[in-house]
Amino acid sequence: MKKIITISREFGSGGRTIGKHLAEALGVPCYDSEIIEKVAVESGFAEEYIKDKGEYTHPSLLMGLLSSRTIYNGPTNEDKIWLIQCKVIKELAEKGPCVIVGRCADYILRGRDDVMKVFIFADPEARAKRIVEVYGEKEDAPAKRLREKDKRRAAYYQHYTDMNWGASRNYDVCLNSSFIGVDKCVDILKEIALKAE
Amino acid sequence: MKKIITISREFGSGGRTIGKHLAEALGVPCYDSEIIEKVAVESGFAEEYIKDKGEYTHPSLLMGLLSSRTIYNGPTNEDKIWLIQCKVIKELAEKGPCVIVGRCADYILRGRDDVMKVFIFADPEARAKRIVEVYGEKEDAPAKRLREKDKRRAAYYQHYTDMNWGASRNYDVCLNSSFIGVDKCVDILKEIALKAE
Repeated sequence: MKKIITISREFGSGGRTIGKHLAEALGVPCYDSEIIEKVAVESGFAEEYIKDKGEYTHPSLLMGLLSSRTIYNGPTNEDKIWLIQCKVIKELAEKGPCVIVGRCADYILRGRDDVMKVFIFADPEARAKRIVEVYGEKEDAPAKRLREKDKRRAAYYQHYTDMNWGASRNYDVCLNSSFIGVDKCVDILKEIALKAE
Repeated sequence: MKKIITISREFGSGGRTIGKHLAEALGVPCYDSEIIEKVAVESGFAEEYIKDKGEYTHPSLLMGLLSSRTIYNGPTNEDKIWLIQCKVIKELAEKGPCVIVGRCADYILRGRDDVMKVFIFADPEARAKRIVEVYGEKEDAPAKRLREKDKRRAAYYQHYTDMNWGASRNYDVCLNSSFIGVDKCVDILKEIALKAE
């Protein structure tokens, strides 16, 4: 089987839940918040700060990152977090079979041949409903919030990996969880992971 | 189950074979060359011409199409084929459950809620190997040929649908056939099609 399964996901697609249940079904650990905790310990930054900066980019910060390439002012906080995040994810992958949710793990582990790369997305209506139900987001304008989140996550991914977030060719399997259903996604991914050599 | 399954695919990914076997497994017809034959009858163009013009665009033709939007010289042959192709695909979908391979059927049938949209792709090395083996393409520079085909198919898709070809969010399921295997792709798609409401 493929030992390491990376799950990239749209906010509100149920990708994190799928990762957790898939790990349970395969009897392997699922790394999600552990990554943030480890990056916090190694970097000294607060967990909340890492949670945001290790996967999202504000347009203003992106401009800062871009200009730092022209006039070099040393690594930004985002760059520091990125480097520690890479180290932490590579170390976790070395420990054995696992599921890793988010944080560009698909790209960070691109050198390995035992990785199965998954992208989970969903219809905008289903995502809006989910972020209100599961994350307790305010009911006003969840669609706008999703667009903003998508934009920032895509910008982060593009900046650090130079690839398009959500382009199917970057992954091995892409599933629309609102079409297929969260539980069925878990079954399918388990099947593929166990079969893949 | 989802009655209509559209399969978009990269050249050399095995998508056509997957479509054929999936249709057999579900006991429904698979429309591929039938579409070209029907468009040929309705349009008067030769099948070989439609095969090329109904899915690919030459950069020079694309320029022609673009300029025809500025200075209108009437519909191009591509536009005529596109319109007939839309009509033929909608009529086939009306006939009942089926698998439709290629030809932007995912976009053409976007108004229906009984469609499952699939994208099949594969690693470049696997595709290069396949086009030499299956299609008898010359062994010299198959990678270059694939890049050219991808570029033309993406341009055609973008022109007529205004969407990015291969962006996972345009589909319900995207599978890397060289990672998963052609037969396993068929099994998974059958499972999803039968389960989806």
